[in-house]
Amino acid sequence: MLDELSHIGRDPSTNGYVRDAWSAADLELREWFRGEAAKRGLDTREDRNGNLWAWWGDPSREPGVVTGSHLDSVRQGGAFDGPLGVVSAFAALDILKNRGISPNRPLGVACFTDEEGARFGVPCMGSRLLTGALAPGRALGLTDDEGDTLADVLTGAGRDPRAIGRDDPTLATVGVFVELHVEQGRRLAGQGSPVGVASAIWPHGRWRFDFRGQANHAGTTRLEDRDDPMLPFARMVLAAREAAARRGVVATVGKVRVSPGNANAVPGLVSAWLDARGAIERDVLDLVTEVAELAAGAEVREESWTPVVDFDEPFRDRLATLIGATGEGAAGEAATGEGAAGSAAEGAAGGVAEGATGGAAAPILPTGAGHDAGILASAGVPSAMLFVRNPTGVSHSPQEHAEQADCEAGVAALATVLEDLCR
Amino acid sequence: MLDELSHIGRDPSTNGYVRDAWSAADLELREWFRGEAAKRGLDTREDRNGNLWAWWGDPSREPGVVTGSHLDSVRQGGAFDGPLGVVSAFAALDILKNRGISPNRPLGVACFTDEEGARFGVPCMGSRLLTGALAPGRALGLTDDEGDTLADVLTGAGRDPRAIGRDDPTLATVGVFVELHVEQGRRLAGQGSPVGVASAIWPHGRWRFDFRGQANHAGTTRLEDRDDPMLPFARMVLAAREAAARRGVVATVGKVRVSPGNANAVPGLVSAWLDARGAIERDVLDLVTEVAELAAGAEVREESWTPVVDFDEPFRDRLATLIGATGEGAAGEAATGEGAAGSAAEGAAGGVAEGATGGAAAPILPTGAGHDAGILASAGVPSAMLFVRNPTGVSHSPQEHAEQADCEAGVAALATVLEDLCR
Repeated sequence: MLDELSHIGRDPSTNGYVRDAWSAADLELREWFRGEAAKRGLDTREDRNGNLWAWWGDPSREPGVVTGSHLDSVRQGGAFDGPLGVVSAFAALDILKNRGISPNRPLGVACFTDEEGARFGVPCMGSRLLTGALAPGRALGLTDDEGDTLADVLTGAGRDPRAIGRDDPTLATVGVFVELHVEQGRRLAGQGSPVGVASAIWPHGRWRFDFRGQANHAGTTRLEDRDDPMLPFARMVLAAREAAARRGVVATVGKVRVSPGNANAVPGLVSAWLDARGAIERDVLDLVTEVAELAAGAEVREESWTPVVDFDEPFRDRLATLIGATGEGAAGEAATGEGAAGSAAEGAAGGVAEGATGGAAAPILPTGAGHDAGILASAGVPSAMLFVRNPTGVSHSPQEHAEQADCEAGVAALATVLEDLCR
Repeated sequence: MLDELSHIGRDPSTNGYVRDAWSAADLELREWFRGEAAKRGLDTREDRNGNLWAWWGDPSREPGVVTGSHLDSVRQGGAFDGPLGVVSAFAALDILKNRGISPNRPLGVACFTDEEGARFGVPCMGSRLLTGALAPGRALGLTDDEGDTLADVLTGAGRDPRAIGRDDPTLATVGVFVELHVEQGRRLAGQGSPVGVASAIWPHGRWRFDFRGQANHAGTTRLEDRDDPMLPFARMVLAAREAAARRGVVATVGKVRVSPGNANAVPGLVSAWLDARGAIERDVLDLVTEVAELAAGAEVREESWTPVVDFDEPFRDRLATLIGATGEGAAGEAATGEGAAGSAAEGAAGGVAEGATGGAAAPILPTGAGHDAGILASAGVPSAMLFVRNPTGVSHSPQEHAEQADCEAGVAALATVLEDLCR
């Protein structure tokens, strides 16, 4: 199924994907979702926040089991981040049907809107709006690079901007959520396992730094007369990296805007986005404070902040054991139980839940990436994540990859989990 | 007349101008030029490289006296850089007509194409093509931010890209060229003079640095696994400034492109443009070599390089004396003759030619900004420049300014010079 999506939003010059929320590519992906659901006899409903839900069974009778992910992409992203979880959801349903299983609970496939935040700067927009974690007023005023607000863009896409916001009836249909995702690091590769289970999502946030100076001529303005914002910006980049290394967290400046952006003019404004994450919230926030203090002249605004998400321990251990028992997540002889993994703060090592029956349980590992499952977990929905091995760990890049066999192991593991949850 | 142009290409959010070559704004400015020429009974001819020429008299009989400048702008530039020279040219013609003067030589007003290089990265494109300083093949392959080549853009504007290149018949019509321009520094303000004469244009160039790394996820990629091009870029910015201060030249990074440009991804490519200028060529080139060696992993390409231009000394001194004699450039009692200014290498101080008759001569000063007059001078055309005082020195910015009285003094000085040259 992933192959069917391979042409949508692809930049032929890089093979990277550009699938901004509500772009033509995104609308085409949504149509694909509806088509896949229809092929399986499922109706698709779009909720007030643009999230898609395809139900097998009626979730208005009782809360269901939901799986899925997102179809949008970072700019110049890879083929797996997002779509793998949606494609695997449909494929897992097919396995259940082929096994002749009729779920005792409603079973849903979800596609969340604008998970990456590529267009408006706030990731997990669809799930944040759904759960009330993001205020509709703030969301509607966000602007894209063209200066269009989310309100403009929703209207342009034929949606009603006044309808967005917390949606308890939809949220009430989600009894439990399991999101499958390509791993965005190399922990599973290091442990020799095709599939793992998430322990936690690191606390993470995004801050915008606006460095203002005086635009001026690059040839005639003496160095001592300049107020060049490029210099404090450059110092900020280096300071953030140094502070991240010292504090054991990660910090990234991946987006920069220079205005007016003439090669022959001192800039008047440099805007830079600092992304910071780590196992311990205090360390991340202290880093941002330190960098902001160093960049004293800059205006610093928090664009998003997501506290640590520790996925429910018994739930994740149960999934790890289930997957391990069927062999889909087993690391082979090399895997040895280390006991259940702790919170995100225990960090990098992750762990392996003890296998209850048969083989070793699947590895349990934290991640530095935000996900809709984390937003739902924070809103009180029992949630879990499965990760599929990424041999290089590269993600948010056209080089992002997962082997076909590992993707199939992921689908099989997801089917096992769904079968158990629907029993 | 400047007021008539004030709406063309203005960004209402900043009051800055965006007047890229061959854009709708540029085409409108060209129409305005034709209209002003027509009002004065002059036909406008566009040469093969897009430069406009409006002649009073027939330059096919004998080479004429030409004045003018350009109408395009850096992005978010001011109202004066370029248009002041074209508007003043027409206004000076009006003064000559009002005085009942009929020039003994053909008198032309010129508007050069794409002086700023805002769109394709190469400044003074029109005069460089005209004189053969830029090869047509190289020019046609240059691309703008949309990826369109100059060839595409010329075709789109109804021009013939195969026609561009060195144009000796047109060049032969230019017996002498005088360009009036707003000063882009504060030397005249410091000397209390409304008008000055250029001694030299500093050698200057533009280099593109491409820093390549590995695009990756900002949350899941460990610092030690990263190949983040933002870091060597930031070091380059700081090194360039430090080296410029040490070597007594200026260096600027005013344009940066980050790809893919996601806030949550380590970038895969950072492209940055280094602009470097100074009184002494060796110092400028040594700076670039030093910075390129420090940024060892980057691919460095020269986009343009213009050696020093020393304007013809007797010519410039004659103009300074003429202007001084009529009082337009006089610095008042405060001005004292310092003797004729030397070459650009003598640098910052500039000088004042001794007034032959009456008041002190107008100040003579070098500039760090490139101009079409410099390109023509390098091609052997006797050329000179008049500068109009800029009280703050700010240029390439919406804050660029010249007082009305100083602009009028500039027009009067230009009329005096043209009258003398046409005698």
